[in-house]
Amino acid sequence: MSDARLSALPTPCLLVDEARMNRNIDRLSRHAASLGVRLRPHLKTTKSVDAARHVLAGGNGPATVSTLAEAEVFAEAGIADILYAVGISPDKLDRVVALHRAGCRLIVLLDSVAQAEAVAAASRACGIAIPAMIEIDSDGHRSGLTADDPALIDVGRTLDAGGAELCGVLCHAGESYGAVGRAAQAVCAEQERRAVVDASDRLRGAGLPCPVVSVGSTPTAHAAKDLTGVTEMRAGVYVFFDLVMAGIDVCDVDDIALSVLTTVIGHQTTRGWTICDAGWMAMSRDRGTASQRVDQGYGIVCDAAGKVIPGLIVIQANQEHGVIAPRSGFDGGTPDLPLGTKLRILPNHACATAAQHGHYHVIPAKRDAPLATWPRFGGW
Amino acid sequence: MSDARLSALPTPCLLVDEARMNRNIDRLSRHAASLGVRLRPHLKTTKSVDAARHVLAGGNGPATVSTLAEAEVFAEAGIADILYAVGISPDKLDRVVALHRAGCRLIVLLDSVAQAEAVAAASRACGIAIPAMIEIDSDGHRSGLTADDPALIDVGRTLDAGGAELCGVLCHAGESYGAVGRAAQAVCAEQERRAVVDASDRLRGAGLPCPVVSVGSTPTAHAAKDLTGVTEMRAGVYVFFDLVMAGIDVCDVDDIALSVLTTVIGHQTTRGWTICDAGWMAMSRDRGTASQRVDQGYGIVCDAAGKVIPGLIVIQANQEHGVIAPRSGFDGGTPDLPLGTKLRILPNHACATAAQHGHYHVIPAKRDAPLATWPRFGGW
Repeated sequence: MSDARLSALPTPCLLVDEARMNRNIDRLSRHAASLGVRLRPHLKTTKSVDAARHVLAGGNGPATVSTLAEAEVFAEAGIADILYAVGISPDKLDRVVALHRAGCRLIVLLDSVAQAEAVAAASRACGIAIPAMIEIDSDGHRSGLTADDPALIDVGRTLDAGGAELCGVLCHAGESYGAVGRAAQAVCAEQERRAVVDASDRLRGAGLPCPVVSVGSTPTAHAAKDLTGVTEMRAGVYVFFDLVMAGIDVCDVDDIALSVLTTVIGHQTTRGWTICDAGWMAMSRDRGTASQRVDQGYGIVCDAAGKVIPGLIVIQANQEHGVIAPRSGFDGGTPDLPLGTKLRILPNHACATAAQHGHYHVIPAKRDAPLATWPRFGGW
Repeated sequence: MSDARLSALPTPCLLVDEARMNRNIDRLSRHAASLGVRLRPHLKTTKSVDAARHVLAGGNGPATVSTLAEAEVFAEAGIADILYAVGISPDKLDRVVALHRAGCRLIVLLDSVAQAEAVAAASRACGIAIPAMIEIDSDGHRSGLTADDPALIDVGRTLDAGGAELCGVLCHAGESYGAVGRAAQAVCAEQERRAVVDASDRLRGAGLPCPVVSVGSTPTAHAAKDLTGVTEMRAGVYVFFDLVMAGIDVCDVDDIALSVLTTVIGHQTTRGWTICDAGWMAMSRDRGTASQRVDQGYGIVCDAAGKVIPGLIVIQANQEHGVIAPRSGFDGGTPDLPLGTKLRILPNHACATAAQHGHYHVIPAKRDAPLATWPRFGGW
């Protein structure tokens, strides 16, 4: 049980189980291949060049990012085909152009004529046809035009006639995070596919190009059975998975590759509480399982070797304190966890928990090899 | 309204209104002085050497921290009297000793004989009487011994006889965050005072020293009317304040010195949504106002000059998207916010929001002076 490699780490800190991560990466890569689509992994979960090398199997793309800071770091590391999957604002176009000049094909995303005009104007000004995708909304989740929105053709024409490059259409079925089980997620996947295929048909019908038809969210990417008309799929959190994904049956708890190593720092014996040094600063404030069938508090507690301790979760968190106790209704016994005991906490949301840390400590797939350290970055 | 200094900043980013911050610092400093106690500010909110210079008025202490990383950074910056206000675990004592050897008086916190034995053993091993405070629990919030716990004297004796330095007792009335209004907070403050004073009486009655009697939380620090028997007060979030503190009437919304500058990146007109680039990565996942009288979503929306826009909040957040809409029930008009508009979002919880960023952009108290940049740090 005791692992000298982990005992030497200051806590709290972030652990990655490389073997699980590799298994997760392999699973979705094979699924995408079986559906005949290219996978464009979202690097916003890991925000690490070392992790990106695994996710992209050493290739230089394609990839998805959520910030220009990510695009800049990954471009610097040699990734040359990047989609910035957040609606572009005109003030960010200078940095987009700079990335193109540095040799990175950075594709922007938009859903309005105003944005298309700004991208077209920037394209003309810099002499580079900035590639852009039009965001399509399949489920009312957030952004995008519905496939039948009259503005779709206007946006496409504004890009195409204005000097930008109209690459295609993109949809993110964000509501699939609330769909429990493979069958419900497959319905979301088909709705997502339908939306972008309909939109691509309309653009082509209007004489506009639409080479790329992109779908993706971790639940729909795993559940999709048929992606006819689609050319690429995106997903991010699948690399690590987390309790939110386990809670809707996209993965098992044993697939979760990310955890926070923590140390027991006290007890409140009369209340049955064990206090550890993983508070919300280490776990994040994400409570994504609170609205699921099973509320996992701030995370499931495992021993230092990563084995789940039945019934034990982090029931509450302050900035640097986590309170560990049996989940409501659990009547099994719980082990003695004396002062100094090392534990691992599985997170609700891998993107949010990882963002609280400056680096990963990686437990290598090769048993007993030394831990690796992968820096990660944040910012915009 | 338009401020060229702000327009030049990439968004999202963190803003500090220095004039408000100075007013907040001055308010609690004067209150502590009027009660005859020393103020030991908690630096976990700001995590910035530049901010600490303001908070400590240029002095070298006393200060409170929540991590050893904070202690190390602030000690390096010359702060020489620091309380590490999270229960100590034995594996962290090497770093505590190293700080003492580097000239910083670092006080540790504990509430068990096991911890006291570890601190005493480390004191003997290194030849430095490590100063320690005993944590007292006044409200069942988290850690600490109740003032009448028989273990109190055992813990004190273990430190005192074992070669450590028993400095005194400390209480944090964490439940005061749920107490609405000055009168209710004053009750918490008196309960907090009573707990540490009773504990100090018991220690002294047993022939043990107890020079320091420490209380503090931002609500109780501001509400306390009489601190007889107390020697010092701690608080952290008062420097910036936030919507959680405004929600329980510790401050006004106009006292909040921290905000996130954001840019409008899209609209969902049929739903009345404006999309901005401040998602939960910029705001944090903290939803501390969700359980208050008024749920502020992910924050109150202000114009670029910092003036609150009536009725407008961030109703939901994804990683890099914030959805701005009128709060439920609001039937006033909302302004037109075209693509590219700059806005400021006031956060639920300043500690959590600030932790998502690598630096502060400071709007100087001196009107029209250039913005300052204060780096901040994280980690453990």
